[in-house]
Amino acid sequence: MTPEFDLIRKYFTFPVKHTILGAGDDAALICISNGMELAVSTDMLVLGRHFFLDTDPQKLGYKTLAVNLSDMAAMGATPKWVTLSLALPDANEVWIEAFMQGFIGLALKYDVDLVGGDITRGPLNLCAQIMGEVSAGKALRRDAAKAGDDVWVSGHLGDAALVLAHLQRKTELDTHEVVASLPFLNAPQPRVALGQALLHIAHSAIDISDGLVADLGHIAVRSRVSAVIELNLIPKSEMIAKRISDPIALQALLAGGDDYELCFTAAQKSRDQINTLSRKLGLAITRIGEIEPGAGVVVHDLSGKAMQLKETGFDQFRN
Amino acid sequence: MTPEFDLIRKYFTFPVKHTILGAGDDAALICISNGMELAVSTDMLVLGRHFFLDTDPQKLGYKTLAVNLSDMAAMGATPKWVTLSLALPDANEVWIEAFMQGFIGLALKYDVDLVGGDITRGPLNLCAQIMGEVSAGKALRRDAAKAGDDVWVSGHLGDAALVLAHLQRKTELDTHEVVASLPFLNAPQPRVALGQALLHIAHSAIDISDGLVADLGHIAVRSRVSAVIELNLIPKSEMIAKRISDPIALQALLAGGDDYELCFTAAQKSRDQINTLSRKLGLAITRIGEIEPGAGVVVHDLSGKAMQLKETGFDQFRN
Repeated sequence: MTPEFDLIRKYFTFPVKHTILGAGDDAALICISNGMELAVSTDMLVLGRHFFLDTDPQKLGYKTLAVNLSDMAAMGATPKWVTLSLALPDANEVWIEAFMQGFIGLALKYDVDLVGGDITRGPLNLCAQIMGEVSAGKALRRDAAKAGDDVWVSGHLGDAALVLAHLQRKTELDTHEVVASLPFLNAPQPRVALGQALLHIAHSAIDISDGLVADLGHIAVRSRVSAVIELNLIPKSEMIAKRISDPIALQALLAGGDDYELCFTAAQKSRDQINTLSRKLGLAITRIGEIEPGAGVVVHDLSGKAMQLKETGFDQFRN
Repeated sequence: MTPEFDLIRKYFTFPVKHTILGAGDDAALICISNGMELAVSTDMLVLGRHFFLDTDPQKLGYKTLAVNLSDMAAMGATPKWVTLSLALPDANEVWIEAFMQGFIGLALKYDVDLVGGDITRGPLNLCAQIMGEVSAGKALRRDAAKAGDDVWVSGHLGDAALVLAHLQRKTELDTHEVVASLPFLNAPQPRVALGQALLHIAHSAIDISDGLVADLGHIAVRSRVSAVIELNLIPKSEMIAKRISDPIALQALLAGGDDYELCFTAAQKSRDQINTLSRKLGLAITRIGEIEPGAGVVVHDLSGKAMQLKETGFDQFRN
């Protein structure tokens, strides 16, 4: 019995609820319900790029799954199964146990079965693949925005990126602001219920992982339309609002990423329905602009002028 | 448009044949045929452990997919979809192009759609997840071996591990032996057709990635039986056969791993059918022992005595 096998037995083996055969064979076996399609997405998180050596392993376990759940949310899919592959520099069981507590805690909350994976020795690397179900033909795709649609976002944007900038000493926040905004960086809430509720309302959707302008840009490209949004309408915390003339805060809001809120488009006639949904979910859903014929993303500044995104320091779009 | 996005467009975008929505959205969408289950497996390959800096990237791309296809073979599943996540230290396009040639060349051969993935900067890490279909209730599992079954293996074993030992200067092979055995290390043939053909013949199956004794041991543990095999029956190349008294060659044969042959059990009444299948596939399939009540794996040496596996240097079982 290899050490890897011991680790798998101790920390990676959990009962499955809706899986024919879970971890422990050459492959897991799952059954897709009649009339459903399988949605599949994967994310790889790397030390030094997506997290740091001092990142709390429990929060990291949570986030590894949360970013994958967010992809399901953006499709309107119900997450059901996940595989997890880890490269670990050593078999630090304290770290592994904490990581898996965060990961499995969130999996239980969303009723997601861990059905397999791989563990190997190597530079720290976390790769999860999420699978979920969505009614055939109903998924929220990026390529279905229509001219005339409203553009909406859930929650508020930029806090995760701004507190990261603080941690990286690129800006300075007050202590109470750090405390209030750290959860947006460490423990994003995947908007799974919202995604499911939007299945019969939204035309297109994406989750904001790379920043609002970049991700809305993906909808624009794939739908062959233009998205025109208003800076003053974009939902922001008081922390971002009071710094909106600071390029770092502005960049966090428009291009920061790590928000894991949903951005979606829907017909104007759906406004009442979306506002009702917002109240029902207890989640802000804000109309920030509209879809027009054309191409690209246009952001109107507070005076209504189109911002020159590249010339105002938004090279982060190019990462 | 980020460099990552450019790379994805240039090197990771291929037409899909049996996928509703491929790469480029928050998730891929696939449809599972009526009466079929989805088989899911994932493998992570790490520099320095599974391959080395001087490994030919085209061969590495091939092997990254091949080891995943082998898991489908071991379930009797038909591979259909794969996701690929890569951490790359830099955007070396020559390397990426060669890697993807190897990966996609094999994907095309097996009609597997690349439906998504992730690319990020980081220490070299390759994580593929394969998905396939298998008739509901028919998959070849590890937990269904029965006392009285024969134990069979495809191909011959140990060449990959022995040539690796040569490359690591733990042993010395003749040049013609290196030339003949390197393909078993670099370009293993996933036994997909064999796995599918065994669906109505075999009781249990596994692919040999960690070594015959360890992998047959998984069948024994999960099926709550003992596997008793004969050293003289295990199929070996002339290279291994003539060195069978050398502990390194013996270890490569029994515990080397990287064979990616199938080991399976089947009722004695299926012998003719399996021999016919062997001729039909042009692939050696050799009966090496039988399943008995009890626990564990017993290997009889050339004189028929049970080998003391741990005391003859097989600590590699513990890796």
